[in-house]
Amino acid sequence: MRIARRSQVPPFAVMEVLAAANARAVAGESVISLCAGQPASGAPSAVRAAAMGLLADGDLGYTEAIGTPALRAALARHYGRWYDVDLDPARVVVTTGSSGAFLLAFLAAFEPGDRVALARPGYPAYRNILTSLGVDVVDLDCGPATGFRPTTAQLAAAHDDAPLAGLVLASPANPTGTMVTGAELDAVVGWCADHGVRLVSDEIYHGITYGDAGRGATAAGRADEGAVVVSSFSKYWGMTGWRLGWLVLPPDLVPPVDALAGNLALCPPALAQHAALAAFTEESYAEADERVRGYAAARDLLLRRVPALGWSVAPPDGAFYLYADVGTDDSVGWCARLLAETGVALTPGTDFDPVDGARWVRLSFAAGEAAVDEALDRIAAWQG
Amino acid sequence: MRIARRSQVPPFAVMEVLAAANARAVAGESVISLCAGQPASGAPSAVRAAAMGLLADGDLGYTEAIGTPALRAALARHYGRWYDVDLDPARVVVTTGSSGAFLLAFLAAFEPGDRVALARPGYPAYRNILTSLGVDVVDLDCGPATGFRPTTAQLAAAHDDAPLAGLVLASPANPTGTMVTGAELDAVVGWCADHGVRLVSDEIYHGITYGDAGRGATAAGRADEGAVVVSSFSKYWGMTGWRLGWLVLPPDLVPPVDALAGNLALCPPALAQHAALAAFTEESYAEADERVRGYAAARDLLLRRVPALGWSVAPPDGAFYLYADVGTDDSVGWCARLLAETGVALTPGTDFDPVDGARWVRLSFAAGEAAVDEALDRIAAWQG
Repeated sequence: MRIARRSQVPPFAVMEVLAAANARAVAGESVISLCAGQPASGAPSAVRAAAMGLLADGDLGYTEAIGTPALRAALARHYGRWYDVDLDPARVVVTTGSSGAFLLAFLAAFEPGDRVALARPGYPAYRNILTSLGVDVVDLDCGPATGFRPTTAQLAAAHDDAPLAGLVLASPANPTGTMVTGAELDAVVGWCADHGVRLVSDEIYHGITYGDAGRGATAAGRADEGAVVVSSFSKYWGMTGWRLGWLVLPPDLVPPVDALAGNLALCPPALAQHAALAAFTEESYAEADERVRGYAAARDLLLRRVPALGWSVAPPDGAFYLYADVGTDDSVGWCARLLAETGVALTPGTDFDPVDGARWVRLSFAAGEAAVDEALDRIAAWQG
Repeated sequence: MRIARRSQVPPFAVMEVLAAANARAVAGESVISLCAGQPASGAPSAVRAAAMGLLADGDLGYTEAIGTPALRAALARHYGRWYDVDLDPARVVVTTGSSGAFLLAFLAAFEPGDRVALARPGYPAYRNILTSLGVDVVDLDCGPATGFRPTTAQLAAAHDDAPLAGLVLASPANPTGTMVTGAELDAVVGWCADHGVRLVSDEIYHGITYGDAGRGATAAGRADEGAVVVSSFSKYWGMTGWRLGWLVLPPDLVPPVDALAGNLALCPPALAQHAALAAFTEESYAEADERVRGYAAARDLLLRRVPALGWSVAPPDGAFYLYADVGTDDSVGWCARLLAETGVALTPGTDFDPVDGARWVRLSFAAGEAAVDEALDRIAAWQG
């Protein structure tokens, strides 16, 4: 029987790497996996403790489609704490991970046939979700020349070709870890508002930042300009498998997103929502910040050792990724050989950039300083 | 800024009822809510206990996009236990609730502009998800004359108008609780296979059945005919807020659904997946079956008392709903008055049937015998 064309999503090259790494591990060979886009440790202790209490005597039935009032209020307060933004909880929508947030935001904001711009390289699910919803993706070539960040000049050129309906901007970005400054975000928000282009600001790595980037620049205070913020409990708080994210929406998008959420998802996971209130305690912030200091140490080590490898990189401002031009023109084959010959698993750049990704690989340093150090020893010996 | 037309989902009439019921409860007035589509009690004890253990020392990171191998294997064994179907675990895909299952199945099976048939009355989210994905919904008028079940004659007539791409068939159905027999399901599966129409069989209420319906007739053994099964841990096992469901797919739909799931959802909630293994213990089956006996007692009471109310009903074969023609032509107003004057909250039929629903209401007896008895006392006194 027929299968829909729109479901023909290209497979990720990293899946081959993961399968080969698994096979090695099962065979008892050493593997250092620096593929994963997730923190090495899980939810804060207080969140786990809260969840255990709820399992003993909590109501784990359906919640409101857009999340419990308590969690929406706690998220609004979080914007005061981190960004000094006074956020109305009515604009906060809790979702099933940032994946659920992107789906709802894209459905509410974009029609089939709309043109939505994405930075290339970028997180491949943006492209794949948009495509499955009938939206046309417009690549913005964001290589080293622009610090991997889209510029308003690029936006203007794409908009001149044919009007854009939207822009997805990630900061910190995946796979590069690059960030936009507050002034750069202001310029993009302003350009989008002036041209009727919906900005979707992916802020899921906020809080995992280095140097003087603060927590990251947020578009959450820009409701009057139509900006949509996507974020998540997965990265800073390490709650990947809990599947909990959120949106900050312009007021006029809340009712359609509420109606869509009730039909498409019913509600985000109840236990995760109730327990996540404990993520906003001093104890949990401190635990998460301690973890970020561990990522920072791994990043510092990487940046010290990378020049000796001859790789060309952009020093990441945030997240836990290093994107590197490793001097190949076949990153899929390069990663396969590296794994086969050293046990180090990296992600080929082709997953993030269908045009130039064959030169690049992504290294996740979420596994920590020791794993990264050992991996670099092996890579250095292998490169000779 | 522009909002997408496809996100303009009609609001549910029950939301007004729930808001009014909440306001009554807050004001300290008595409310008997028979609106909810969820069991009164939660997950089996063994599932809660397993989850507590996992919170202490489990890995709650991302899982495979289509679910853990252990849970997929356990689900396949469940089909042996309940239906004597020998199911390959490779055909089982774990999802974020049945909501996630419908989204993935609809995206993989149907193109924008396809015609997909639904029984009317029916679960409104089918219509709303399909519409948001650009699929055209074709109503099959399934009133009392056909026992609220679509017939192959209706399918043939709709297919003659213009070819159908799919059919969603729910058994037990929401809002009526009616079921198709094994022979009726065979006829529908056969007709669909003969005409290249994809059957999506909603079996989320299986196990909550009365009389001699067994666990319900499943389409899971009909992979060679292209049928898709949607099911859930929410109803029989009472795990609504855990957001865990599954698909049984024809083999050729597994790769596209896997790719879509990785992009649209990443993975179903990890804790729920790991803990749900304990749903397949003797203890959990026994706990769930005991709950079904409670629903059966409430149903028997209802069917004994309903004739005195003058309502016209179809005795439900399964689920925990009674759909009743209450002799009004404004069920929204009728439900509002009933709530205001007696504190009993029911769901207007217009949520399930935009054409004939103004005569009907849905009563959920999941709240149990005592709540139903008290509600019927009030309704009888109110009707006079």
